[in-house]
Amino acid sequence: MKTVIEQAQIAKNASHLMRKATTEQKNTFLKVLATLIEKNKDLIIAKNTKDLNENQNITPAMKKRLTLSEAGLAGIVSAIGSLVPMPDPVGVVVNEHIREDGLKISRVRAPIGVIVCIFESRPNVIVDVAALCIKSGNVAIVRGGKEAFHSNNILLSYIQQALQESGLPQDGVQQLEDRRHEAINELIVLDQYIDLVIPRGRKELIDSVTEHSKVPVIKHARGLCHAYIDRDADIEKAIDIVINAKTSNPATCNSVETVLVHKDIADSIMPKLLEKLFEKNVEVMGDERTCTYSNKCRLATEDDWDEEYLDLKVSIKIVDSYDEAIAHISKYSSSLTDSIVSENNETTKNFQDDVDSAVVLVNASNRLTDGEQFGLGGEIGISTCRIHMRGPMGLEDMTVTKYVVVGDGHIRK
Amino acid sequence: MKTVIEQAQIAKNASHLMRKATTEQKNTFLKVLATLIEKNKDLIIAKNTKDLNENQNITPAMKKRLTLSEAGLAGIVSAIGSLVPMPDPVGVVVNEHIREDGLKISRVRAPIGVIVCIFESRPNVIVDVAALCIKSGNVAIVRGGKEAFHSNNILLSYIQQALQESGLPQDGVQQLEDRRHEAINELIVLDQYIDLVIPRGRKELIDSVTEHSKVPVIKHARGLCHAYIDRDADIEKAIDIVINAKTSNPATCNSVETVLVHKDIADSIMPKLLEKLFEKNVEVMGDERTCTYSNKCRLATEDDWDEEYLDLKVSIKIVDSYDEAIAHISKYSSSLTDSIVSENNETTKNFQDDVDSAVVLVNASNRLTDGEQFGLGGEIGISTCRIHMRGPMGLEDMTVTKYVVVGDGHIRK
Repeated sequence: MKTVIEQAQIAKNASHLMRKATTEQKNTFLKVLATLIEKNKDLIIAKNTKDLNENQNITPAMKKRLTLSEAGLAGIVSAIGSLVPMPDPVGVVVNEHIREDGLKISRVRAPIGVIVCIFESRPNVIVDVAALCIKSGNVAIVRGGKEAFHSNNILLSYIQQALQESGLPQDGVQQLEDRRHEAINELIVLDQYIDLVIPRGRKELIDSVTEHSKVPVIKHARGLCHAYIDRDADIEKAIDIVINAKTSNPATCNSVETVLVHKDIADSIMPKLLEKLFEKNVEVMGDERTCTYSNKCRLATEDDWDEEYLDLKVSIKIVDSYDEAIAHISKYSSSLTDSIVSENNETTKNFQDDVDSAVVLVNASNRLTDGEQFGLGGEIGISTCRIHMRGPMGLEDMTVTKYVVVGDGHIRK
Repeated sequence: MKTVIEQAQIAKNASHLMRKATTEQKNTFLKVLATLIEKNKDLIIAKNTKDLNENQNITPAMKKRLTLSEAGLAGIVSAIGSLVPMPDPVGVVVNEHIREDGLKISRVRAPIGVIVCIFESRPNVIVDVAALCIKSGNVAIVRGGKEAFHSNNILLSYIQQALQESGLPQDGVQQLEDRRHEAINELIVLDQYIDLVIPRGRKELIDSVTEHSKVPVIKHARGLCHAYIDRDADIEKAIDIVINAKTSNPATCNSVETVLVHKDIADSIMPKLLEKLFEKNVEVMGDERTCTYSNKCRLATEDDWDEEYLDLKVSIKIVDSYDEAIAHISKYSSSLTDSIVSENNETTKNFQDDVDSAVVLVNASNRLTDGEQFGLGGEIGISTCRIHMRGPMGLEDMTVTKYVVVGDGHIRK
């Protein structure tokens, strides 16, 4: 078994080669990997079944995340394929200017380097991470959940085979071999080798990584998302958006947890909105005014405004004004994604500036906050940090600009 | 005295207003501040003299950094003025596309939020930080060196007056009032209020901040910079660049510490290069081959390749090949700024890819690595991180992109 520090050094060395990989090599890797997974799907499913058998005491939700079905594998293969036509971000000149004295100053995209990605039971993540990291010229050290041990191992073997077959360093993607819990904390202090850590999973994992890391962390803290129905909202659109944003996949971070309704539109929208929510078996925690529209609503407590239900539950508050909506969002939003429904252009323009979230949506469902939906060809995570970038993190966001300065004997005067 | 947490909360609240400041307000702030400093220069110099008197036991170098002369103040005023015509980065649409179904997805620049800047004795930094933070829509909490106590206080009073006179929140720039050493560590764990920490100063300060912070840190680790004289170099340009990069201000991080010379050009360049270096009183630590050109060279030890002299000292190594130069730079460079001198376009193109530094220069002095030289109108620091951005950090780099998504009732299917 390699030690933590050995794996970090290997990754750093591999990153010097990976940085210079051609677009063709990177696309070959993606195609070979897709073929290998396709060809070996029975073997992969057998390993996944072994994981499921060895972890019979996990919750049904975890079991669902851990399971790799044939359809799930087809989805993974298709996700890899969708990265092939995406433009290679490495080497792109973001901007350049030439000084009066002829010195040319350019900002050019380069890979970040070595990215550590820590995730929990879903075994598709190891493939997503590998595909996104390699296409963007980065090297990855991954640590998956122990429940997915056999699934991750077999997928990693195909990833490494695909790297080798495309002339890229096989160590471009490694799994942390040291399975001790402390190993991860030993890894994320090695700032001479590791350039970025992306933890995906439970709050405790993310907090622990943030606390111990000496390396930059891009994290998605939590998803307490709002939809605000303005007094100038189109009622049909508002209902469609709220139902979609709450019920299409309530366990995801981009689902709405709180709906704010302007008092002037409440009479027109609340009865129908509540009816539709109850039809979808959504439990409603409402403020006093909301509760007047239905006795099936439970009176919301202060805690409800601050809770990420991740379930078929929603809190609803009727507000007196746009300003009250903004104040509520400023106070409670996790700044991941908040939306407004309004036909008033001035109001929607203000909302874009007033709401300080990674993704602000106008007349669109919060659930659209997603790398694939945004045309990024996938995402390695959603950032709620306020440096580097905010929102779904795609290929381009896995690079960083460096300066290239070209002169003809220029010195500093 | 306000507590650390109170100041952090005040800053976060101020950031919601500052985010929406107009370009006009921000430029008014800069102009008012410049006028206030200009008008009160005698008072400022008197406070600075008080600092100098109270700190008589500091080193001559520190004393030089602490001193605010009339010319120094004129420089500060001019630096503030140069930010006025710079474009406001906030609200700039970096890119946008419209999906086939009409959903418009834009990435828009927004301020980072609350930036903590920790710096040592130079009192001009508080003004630089304030000017750059406010023009980019950010809020700052600063902690300056205790030696500059009176200077920073009076400068802060003008900063806050200028904020008020331009209709911006006066708390947009605060000094950390709690002067305890631990106060800074208490501040940089408050990730609900603080968005970024920029430490500028000694390695111990930067290490301590990196270790304790729960907030992203953009730091400039150290400046071990190289100049490589290729076999196809123009000898005159090479000598000019090395002399400039080593001697124009040896105490700065972008000065060259190691010169690598291709063996094929050594006979033509070494005698003259050494002569010029000795003329400028530069001490030379050379490898064996370098020492054959002059008995005034001291034989370099392994430690010399790894040392940031920040002084009139340079290490020189004659290399057998381009690859040996790249391997040396990969091993020892701090990845801040490395340069090549060569007339061979293929070699210089390879160098840009092979050298993984924040700034790579071709036929230009490493000393040009600077926000003002790059046309950024100043810099809040130089980043050797590998996320967010690399190199001199100017106004645009003090923002982050957020997503604005505009639909017409769009939901996720």
